[in-house]
Amino acid sequence: MEQKDQNGLSRREFLKKAGIGVGVAAGALALSSTPLFAEASAAGTVAEDAFPLAILDPEEARLRGHAGYYMGGCAYGAFYAIISLLREKVGGPYNQVPYRMMSYGKAGGVGWGTLCGSLNGAAAAITLSVKNADYAKIINELIGWYTITPLPTDASNKIGAASGFIRTTSKKYPAIVLAQSTSKSPLCHASVSQWCKVAGLKQGTPERLERCARVTGDAAAKAVELLNAYQQGTFKPVFAIDDETSTCLGCHKDDTVGQMRCLSCHKGH
Amino acid sequence: MEQKDQNGLSRREFLKKAGIGVGVAAGALALSSTPLFAEASAAGTVAEDAFPLAILDPEEARLRGHAGYYMGGCAYGAFYAIISLLREKVGGPYNQVPYRMMSYGKAGGVGWGTLCGSLNGAAAAITLSVKNADYAKIINELIGWYTITPLPTDASNKIGAASGFIRTTSKKYPAIVLAQSTSKSPLCHASVSQWCKVAGLKQGTPERLERCARVTGDAAAKAVELLNAYQQGTFKPVFAIDDETSTCLGCHKDDTVGQMRCLSCHKGH
Repeated sequence: MEQKDQNGLSRREFLKKAGIGVGVAAGALALSSTPLFAEASAAGTVAEDAFPLAILDPEEARLRGHAGYYMGGCAYGAFYAIISLLREKVGGPYNQVPYRMMSYGKAGGVGWGTLCGSLNGAAAAITLSVKNADYAKIINELIGWYTITPLPTDASNKIGAASGFIRTTSKKYPAIVLAQSTSKSPLCHASVSQWCKVAGLKQGTPERLERCARVTGDAAAKAVELLNAYQQGTFKPVFAIDDETSTCLGCHKDDTVGQMRCLSCHKGH
Repeated sequence: MEQKDQNGLSRREFLKKAGIGVGVAAGALALSSTPLFAEASAAGTVAEDAFPLAILDPEEARLRGHAGYYMGGCAYGAFYAIISLLREKVGGPYNQVPYRMMSYGKAGGVGWGTLCGSLNGAAAAITLSVKNADYAKIINELIGWYTITPLPTDASNKIGAASGFIRTTSKKYPAIVLAQSTSKSPLCHASVSQWCKVAGLKQGTPERLERCARVTGDAAAKAVELLNAYQQGTFKPVFAIDDETSTCLGCHKDDTVGQMRCLSCHKGH
C-alpha cells in the first residue's frame, strides 16, 4: 500500500488529482535520470497528446484577452485568456505551462512586426488543446478571420462603451468606441499601420494600445468560438484566400510558401 | 513532520526534486478549486518566474533542430532542440511543457508564411528560460542574426557533407552542400522565396525541405550560443537595423510597429 501525505493523498492520487496521468508522470515528472527525450531517441518522434479540452465562454475570453494585454502584451494576453479558462475548467496539465512563455510574441515578435501576437498566443493555446490532425484547420480559420474582419469588433467596442470594470484587472475598459480597420494581413506591422491610417492616430497613443488590447480580446474570443464549435462537431472552415491571391499563386505556388495577399507588397503584372 | 511516500520523499521534497518550487506548486499543482488565475484577479498580474537555465551544447542543438524538423516542422524542431536539452540538464518544469505546443509555427504559422517557425520555436524556449527583463534582447539578436546571415550555415552544410546519422532520428543528414541565401527578413515567405531563387529550386523539393531542416538546426544552435553567453555574462547585442531602414523609420516611427526592412515591400521615395 502506498504511503499517504499529510493531506491523505498518496503520490499517485496527488498526480491524478493534479490532472497528470501516472503514465505521463513516470516520464514527465521523472525523478530518475531518464528524461522523456529518451523516447524520441528511440522512435524518432515523441508521442505526446493534446491536453483535454472543454467548452469555454468566449465573452469571458474577450475580457481576459483585453486585460492580459495590459499585463504582458498581445501574445501573452491571448494565451493567458484561453489557458486561464482551461485551468479553471480542466486544470491539471494546463497549470504547468506558464502564461509568460508567449510574451515574446508582442508587437509581432519582440517588436519586429511579424505575426500579430494575438494570433501567435491564441495559436499556441489551440495547438496545446487540439490533436495534431486538427489544430492547423482551426488556426488557419482564426488567421483568415483576422485578415478580413473590421477590428476591434463591435462586441469589443460595445464593452468599451459600457465602461465596466474588467473583472481580472483594476484597469477600466475605456468608454470609447474605436475606429475599426481590416488588416488584410496577419502581420502586426500591416495591421497596426492600417489602423493608424484609418483612425488618424499615431502608433504610440493610448488609443492604439487600447485598440490592440481589444483586438487581443477579439482574437481570444474567436479562438474560443472555434474551439467550442470543434468540440460540438459544428466547426466548418469558411475562410478562403481572395481571387487575386489565388490567381498569383496559380503560377507562383512553386516559388514560395504562404497565404498572405501578394499585392500588399508586390506589384502586380 | 511531513509524511514520506514509498520512495522516502515527502510531497514537498518530491516537488523540489521535480524542479517545481513549493511556492509555485501551491498554485500550479493546486489540489483545491482555486486556480492560479485567482492570483491574477487580485493583483492584476500573474507572478511567474523563468525556468532555471543551464549551459547547453550548441552543436547538439543544431543536430536536434535538424532532426526535430522532420518530426514536426521548423517551429517544433527549434523548440524541441532547446527544451529537450534543458530537460536533460535541468529537468523538472521543462518536462511539463509539451514539444508539440509550438508545432503550429511551421511554414510561418500553419502555412501562412509569416514569422519563420525556427525563430518562433526558439523564441518560446528562450522566453521560458530567461527573465522578463532580458528575453527580448536575446530574441532580438537571434532574429537580427537570421536576417543577415547566409543560411544554412557552413556548420550545417559541413555536417551534411559528413553524412553522419543524427543521433535522435533514423533519418540521414543528406550528404549535400546546399546553396546559401540571406533572407533580409524574418518572414518564412521571404526567406524561402529568396532561397528558392538563389538555389534555382522549387519550394516543394526535398532540397528545400532539407534547407529548412538545416536552418532550424542553425537557429537552435544560435539561440543556445546566445543563451550560453547570457549566462556567462558575455552576451553583447551586435545587431542593428540597416541605414536604409533607419532612414525610413526616422520619419515613419509613429505610423507603424516593426523592424523589418521597409524597401523589401515598399517602394522608396
